[in-house]
Amino acid sequence: LLGNQPRKRAGSNYTGEEGGLSSSALPPSHERETEEEESIMGFTVVVKRAAKKQINACCSKENLKTKLPITKWLPKYSLQALQCDLIAGLTVGLTVIPQGLAYAKIADLPPQYGLYSAFMGCFVYCFLGTAKDITLGPTAIMSLMTATFATSPIEEDATYAIVLCLITGCVQLLLGLLNLGILVNFISYPVINAFTSAAAITIGFGQVKGILGLTHIPRDFPEMVYETCKKIPETKIWDLVMGLVCLALLYVLKKLRTINWNDDLDGPGPNRCVRFCRYLIWLIGTASNAIVVISASGVAAILISQGKNNTLSITGHLKPGLPDFKPPDFSYTKDNITITASTIFSDIGAGFGIVPLLGLVELIAIGKAFARQNHYKIYPSQELIAIGFANIISCFVGSYPVTGSFSRTAVNSQSGVKTPASGIFTGVLIVLALFTLTPLFYYIPKSALSAVIIFSVIQMVDVMVVKKLWKTNKIDLIPLFITFLSCLGVGMEYGILIGIGVSMIILLYPSARPKIKVEPGGVKVVKLDQGLLFPAVEYLQECVLEANEADGKNNSVVLDCSHVSALDYTAIQGITELIVDFKSREAKLVFAGFPKNVLKHLQVADIPELTVSSTVQEGCKLLQEELTPEFSGVQHIKVEYNSRL
Amino acid sequence: LLGNQPRKRAGSNYTGEEGGLSSSALPPSHERETEEEESIMGFTVVVKRAAKKQINACCSKENLKTKLPITKWLPKYSLQALQCDLIAGLTVGLTVIPQGLAYAKIADLPPQYGLYSAFMGCFVYCFLGTAKDITLGPTAIMSLMTATFATSPIEEDATYAIVLCLITGCVQLLLGLLNLGILVNFISYPVINAFTSAAAITIGFGQVKGILGLTHIPRDFPEMVYETCKKIPETKIWDLVMGLVCLALLYVLKKLRTINWNDDLDGPGPNRCVRFCRYLIWLIGTASNAIVVISASGVAAILISQGKNNTLSITGHLKPGLPDFKPPDFSYTKDNITITASTIFSDIGAGFGIVPLLGLVELIAIGKAFARQNHYKIYPSQELIAIGFANIISCFVGSYPVTGSFSRTAVNSQSGVKTPASGIFTGVLIVLALFTLTPLFYYIPKSALSAVIIFSVIQMVDVMVVKKLWKTNKIDLIPLFITFLSCLGVGMEYGILIGIGVSMIILLYPSARPKIKVEPGGVKVVKLDQGLLFPAVEYLQECVLEANEADGKNNSVVLDCSHVSALDYTAIQGITELIVDFKSREAKLVFAGFPKNVLKHLQVADIPELTVSSTVQEGCKLLQEELTPEFSGVQHIKVEYNSRL
Repeated sequence: LLGNQPRKRAGSNYTGEEGGLSSSALPPSHERETEEEESIMGFTVVVKRAAKKQINACCSKENLKTKLPITKWLPKYSLQALQCDLIAGLTVGLTVIPQGLAYAKIADLPPQYGLYSAFMGCFVYCFLGTAKDITLGPTAIMSLMTATFATSPIEEDATYAIVLCLITGCVQLLLGLLNLGILVNFISYPVINAFTSAAAITIGFGQVKGILGLTHIPRDFPEMVYETCKKIPETKIWDLVMGLVCLALLYVLKKLRTINWNDDLDGPGPNRCVRFCRYLIWLIGTASNAIVVISASGVAAILISQGKNNTLSITGHLKPGLPDFKPPDFSYTKDNITITASTIFSDIGAGFGIVPLLGLVELIAIGKAFARQNHYKIYPSQELIAIGFANIISCFVGSYPVTGSFSRTAVNSQSGVKTPASGIFTGVLIVLALFTLTPLFYYIPKSALSAVIIFSVIQMVDVMVVKKLWKTNKIDLIPLFITFLSCLGVGMEYGILIGIGVSMIILLYPSARPKIKVEPGGVKVVKLDQGLLFPAVEYLQECVLEANEADGKNNSVVLDCSHVSALDYTAIQGITELIVDFKSREAKLVFAGFPKNVLKHLQVADIPELTVSSTVQEGCKLLQEELTPEFSGVQHIKVEYNSRL
Repeated sequence: LLGNQPRKRAGSNYTGEEGGLSSSALPPSHERETEEEESIMGFTVVVKRAAKKQINACCSKENLKTKLPITKWLPKYSLQALQCDLIAGLTVGLTVIPQGLAYAKIADLPPQYGLYSAFMGCFVYCFLGTAKDITLGPTAIMSLMTATFATSPIEEDATYAIVLCLITGCVQLLLGLLNLGILVNFISYPVINAFTSAAAITIGFGQVKGILGLTHIPRDFPEMVYETCKKIPETKIWDLVMGLVCLALLYVLKKLRTINWNDDLDGPGPNRCVRFCRYLIWLIGTASNAIVVISASGVAAILISQGKNNTLSITGHLKPGLPDFKPPDFSYTKDNITITASTIFSDIGAGFGIVPLLGLVELIAIGKAFARQNHYKIYPSQELIAIGFANIISCFVGSYPVTGSFSRTAVNSQSGVKTPASGIFTGVLIVLALFTLTPLFYYIPKSALSAVIIFSVIQMVDVMVVKKLWKTNKIDLIPLFITFLSCLGVGMEYGILIGIGVSMIILLYPSARPKIKVEPGGVKVVKLDQGLLFPAVEYLQECVLEANEADGKNNSVVLDCSHVSALDYTAIQGITELIVDFKSREAKLVFAGFPKNVLKHLQVADIPELTVSSTVQEGCKLLQEELTPEFSGVQHIKVEYNSRL
């Protein structure tokens, strides 16, 4: 069940066509026969079968080919595809260079680390990726997560971030190999939405300091707001002007990309020259980040050449060229501070779990959106493997964790990309920039980079979702607001965990609080409607003990378990406790009608004095004959599970 | 549903008798009528009703009385009960003094903080607690959690621990007022079991250094084991001998407590003198910690008086008397290190969520065990309020987080306690000890305290559970081992979170992967068997798209939603995406047979081009007439939910 989809269907994304592959997920007939049994046996069987399939699937030759999707599209690669990929790759490169420099600021790292993070992922994804549109690299959320979990105590030091990148890659690779992409399904839309909005606000407000030219602002959101407001009088007016001009320019240029030319569909199409002009205007819109940053740098360079060195806060010196290709340091000494591996690991802590998962969520969300738009399929497990390898190899060139970028994937798709090969050209462009352009990066005003960030994250805030949820499903507002407020109030890292927890508890609430029905009568029969699993155990105990005490008497009780299809250990413990309770109260408890396979589990548990009957009637008879002579009539207390699950 | 149990039934624990209260949890008749609707409406209605009840319940006079359980038992208090409580309270005091000194070592605090933590909780619980047996105070697990989350960067400084105590109390109080004791139900038995065993091993092994007289051992388990083994050659032989002798003595003395006197039940009972001797022997067993510590201190004092100062590692000077009654410091400077509130809060981080929950779990587990044994009931929400207040007020006297202690609650119960008033006597004894005994505590050998800890935690390790789970429910071994290994490997704080996550995912797995049935035919009908909630959305999409692609054609599909009783926003998003998919594929998707109230949610969502029919037949007809002429026969693809939930 887990393993066969990627194996049978991968590799069809090159042409974007589908067909003839669909019946693979339908189980063969011998599986259908065992289905009824399986629904009773529950999870154990499902897992066993999945594990078996998984092992078989891993060993097939077809599977090994699927794990390297380049083998599917490379043999069919054409000159025309090369041309499309070249244009798309270079266009994405123009976008990623200013973005990378800016995102490194969010991650609290020197700007060149944004570029280090940008190129290796593109190369790796070309070999392992299944979606033609996706481009890997630094993103706003990954940068924020890097700052949250992996800020080194030493300034301008990337060791923590690089270690986080390595472990993120390993965790993602492991999840991919174990086919655990399913984990993403347990994060609901409101939680992701609230997290993204909160991240955008945190990132956006964090760059207000850049626009105002302020320094020494803390990173936690509440303090950040407080300190930024307190320091407003220290605003540097030139930085502010530059920032606002950049924002205005970005707004105008981005509008160029979405111009609707209102062509007459029935008339003759526009001629070549008009089409080229339109393409040029679209390109200017797409490369708006680059244009704004270059213009702002020009202004800064002119100011500096005229001796006005301190008017604008600029980026300053960048290390030119590629970083050394080497594994991450796990312990090192710098500025007289010695940091050991165990310090790094305990400081990053939960980041090793949260960052890989968020990277996956972001990648899958983007991949699914573009797969839908361009009619192909993505395979979560293969994507996990691709992103895992990308992170592992990227960390050798000093990268912090990367994932799929929504804005650049959109540019890639609109530029007419045909295969993941476009990543090669993006990567090469970045490497060239690192070798040749770093002296020019010196002049980039910090406020221009802040403007780029603010403009890009502002689109991530989704206010309309509140209205939609209010109209359609108000209960989903609870995880939305709790996630949003805890992300801003107590930190992004706890916010996402709290949100996932709350949405799971809402999902599981009905299973913890089944409803109770009472029919008038005398013999107490408590009826369970579905599986008895850990969240429901305590409530069942309460119900049964209430039945015991009903009418001010000490009643014996029959528990109707004919619908109990599964039983976990917590439930077995609960049953044992109930039997002890009844013994100490000198009453009797009979478990009636357990299905055979469930009863088997109960019998091997060696519960002392477990009384079982095959039907409720038999159970009642047992009680009336042997134990309690004072019964009069029959009373049913029905424990019914809410049918939401 | 949430609010009425504690309101109607609290306060009956004084006499241990029950009766005449049971019908309160059965809903009145007007609720029964709306039940069917409710099962369809799902969570929203349940929450609304619960909130309304909650507000009503909070405002009643009866409820205010319930929140102060002392008002129930104090008017009936007798001289005989006072005598029993006095004996029990003093016996517990004898146990808690050596335990407190030892547990403070686990928490990485000076020994007096164990005593500071021990007395205020006893006083508060006397007013607010509902269970006569429970005694609050420092416990091994809370001490370990304090060390994990709240170790100050300054040595011997308790500020972090005290702040953690305050926030723990506030969180617990809030959970109690919101009636959220139900949260405990979402932690399954194997997770708690594995966590407890791992904690015991961490604590126990952490004290091996005390027995061996080693210093500078790190706290993370893997490093701790490594460093301890590496430093074995540095063992101080006197400490080792003292530790082993103490362990042996503890073993022998504890045995005294459980002697079975083999009385002839039919013959005359033992006379008064024999009974008194037996009581004395039992008391020696119960006070074994105190006896061992006093004897060891005597040995140390003799050695020191003979000038052998360095043979044994001893506790050293303790601050005598009570600490100042003052609120916790949130920012302070000590040893030239300045610590601000935000540093404390970000360092403790997840501790503010995990510690209150673990405190609650420990308290409820103990409370339930003794309530069962002694025939009374505990009320989780009231217990949360009691422990919340206890922590809040304790932090004013320099306490770290406290909860119910299993060993001392057992002593309390066996000593014949009658009401929570016994806590007063325990508390007074501790205060007296702080004023008068601190000079004597100077001589306590560290290895004796380590022996006390090791002996008490060794009983917490439960190996047999593995065998039980293997026999009864193998799937529960997964959360057990994952929790255990991650607690030891990556730390207690992550271990418990990972364990809860894994057990929830196992619980929810069936809802994320419904099964598929296929019947031969032509028109594609996909059938959903239950509610459509977020974990299942992606899989449903896959199934429907597979139906679209079946037989290598581009089929239109009817989705049979007649059993969908609930729909969350993630599902509505998923449906919208499916409609977009079908539009781009130029096929048609019809949603058939939605129940009216669910359809309402869907209609207000304004999904463009949503096609709905009242029955599957109508849906098929719609497709055949208007859209696709190439149908031949009928094919059913049934999506059936696993019935485990």
